[in-house]
Amino acid sequence: MDEIFSIKLKVRDYEVDLQGVVNNANYQHYLEHARHEFLNSIGLDFAKLTNEGIILVVKRIEIDYNQALRSGDSFIVDCRPERISTLRFGFNQSIYRVSDGKVIIHAKVIGTSINRQGRPFLPPEIDKAFI
Amino acid sequence: MDEIFSIKLKVRDYEVDLQGVVNNANYQHYLEHARHEFLNSIGLDFAKLTNEGIILVVKRIEIDYNQALRSGDSFIVDCRPERISTLRFGFNQSIYRVSDGKVIIHAKVIGTSINRQGRPFLPPEIDKAFI
Amino acid sequence: MDEIFSIKLKVRDYEVDLQGVVNNANYQHYLEHARHEFLNSIGLDFAKLTNEGIILVVKRIEIDYNQALRSGDSFIVDCRPERISTLRFGFNQSIYRVSDGKVIIHAKVIGTSINRQGRPFLPPEIDKAFI
Amino acid sequence: MDEIFSIKLKVRDYEVDLQGVVNNANYQHYLEHARHEFLNSIGLDFAKLTNEGIILVVKRIEIDYNQALRSGDSFIVDCRPERISTLRFGFNQSIYRVSDGKVIIHAKVIGTSINRQGRPFLPPEIDKAFI
Repeated sequence: MDEIFSIKLKVRDYEVDLQGVVNNANYQHYLEHARHEFLNSIGLDFAKLTNEGIILVVKRIEIDYNQALRSGDSFIVDCRPERISTLRFGFNQSIYRVSDGKVIIHAKVIGTSINRQGRPFLPPEIDKAFI
Repeated sequence: MDEIFSIKLKVRDYEVDLQGVVNNANYQHYLEHARHEFLNSIGLDFAKLTNEGIILVVKRIEIDYNQALRSGDSFIVDCRPERISTLRFGFNQSIYRVSDGKVIIHAKVIGTSINRQGRPFLPPEIDKAFI
Repeated sequence: MDEIFSIKLKVRDYEVDLQGVVNNANYQHYLEHARHEFLNSIGLDFAKLTNEGIILVVKRIEIDYNQALRSGDSFIVDCRPERISTLRFGFNQSIYRVSDGKVIIHAKVIGTSINRQGRPFLPPEIDKAFI
Repeated sequence: MDEIFSIKLKVRDYEVDLQGVVNNANYQHYLEHARHEFLNSIGLDFAKLTNEGIILVVKRIEIDYNQALRSGDSFIVDCRPERISTLRFGFNQSIYRVSDGKVIIHAKVIGTSINRQGRPFLPPEIDKAFI
């Protein structure tokens, strides 16, 4: 049985906007950080890959916003990898509030890997991470 | 014939991440700013609406990333409103690079309007903005 | 003997800019988050205070940048409160990298407390937090 | 007579935090963007310099916060270069609100230039920009 990778974070007040809730764009930051920590957990380092010319890029993102996080909230960001096609891989991600377990957002992120010339380039270490 | 509302911006270097391109989440910032400027152009003020208890919220966002913006790039963000249903309104938005006209991203943003209790509340000024 | 309040954080890749190091402005985010967590630790909630009309504001900040944080770095942000005058309070803050203990930045932050009309207003709970 | 370099910007709503004013750290973003635009105006490109191994770094920043910017505010960010020493250069920067001309912040930023090994390295094009 697979465990679902997740990280726990807490809202930082500068992430909250004039409506008193976490600004929509910041959820994308949380999702990205969870994906990079997931990659770390399987031995892949986003910055190191970039330096080696393996450029992981997001091609599409879909986010459904259900609830809003506020100042003081702790939350879980999970990350479930999924193989989409030969060259594309995906992540199903959710964010839950710790205090009541409510789903804050669901997201689907589809990415690919290119080289410095922008050509598709999926090296074995990325390939085998998404089965 | 309707004109398409758009704003012109320039990449700020702090928006560029370690891959040397504008970080994915910052496009949501550009899109949000263009939507709020669009609202201004039809006489609606996002912050003032919030203070009056008319809370405009994003329910869903879809972004397709085609190209990446880099340091120095100027770009156009447009904003085409669309009525989705009685309570939901949408925005079709694209970002184009000025230098070559290439599409950077396409986005579809679906929102609604709620009151301070989180209940659907679409006052006439919002209602008539999306036909 | 007083213990020094501190929090431990990890660089998130979106905080890293095109030079491959954490962007200067993000250190101010780290410092703010540590100050708000310090306030929490003594029973003060920044967002709640704001809602009650007790507006904590920064009047001056000085930051000396010694080293740069990079992708993957964990770091400690500390927070030592200091009373400056009747109406002003300060924070001496440093950030250290966990891996080698090196000082990344030193900062001095001076703040005050105002009411919704912008007048000085230092209620007892703030007053006694800075002796 | 020297003209003072300045840029005009408008607050973006995501830059406003739960206190209803532009978050302190965002002023550093405005200041940085004005400095990079100033460099552009004298023929220097921050990202290109970085790629060539000329790393411009901030060593110290001092900001005095006088007033706060809010949603809808337009503002001017200026940038007055000053030579500090053989290896250090500075910028005196202010931000003014367009509507009433009030000073929002004053800042002094001191920087230097290093190579990829972190050694002082002030090439002629930087040297002659700060007299």
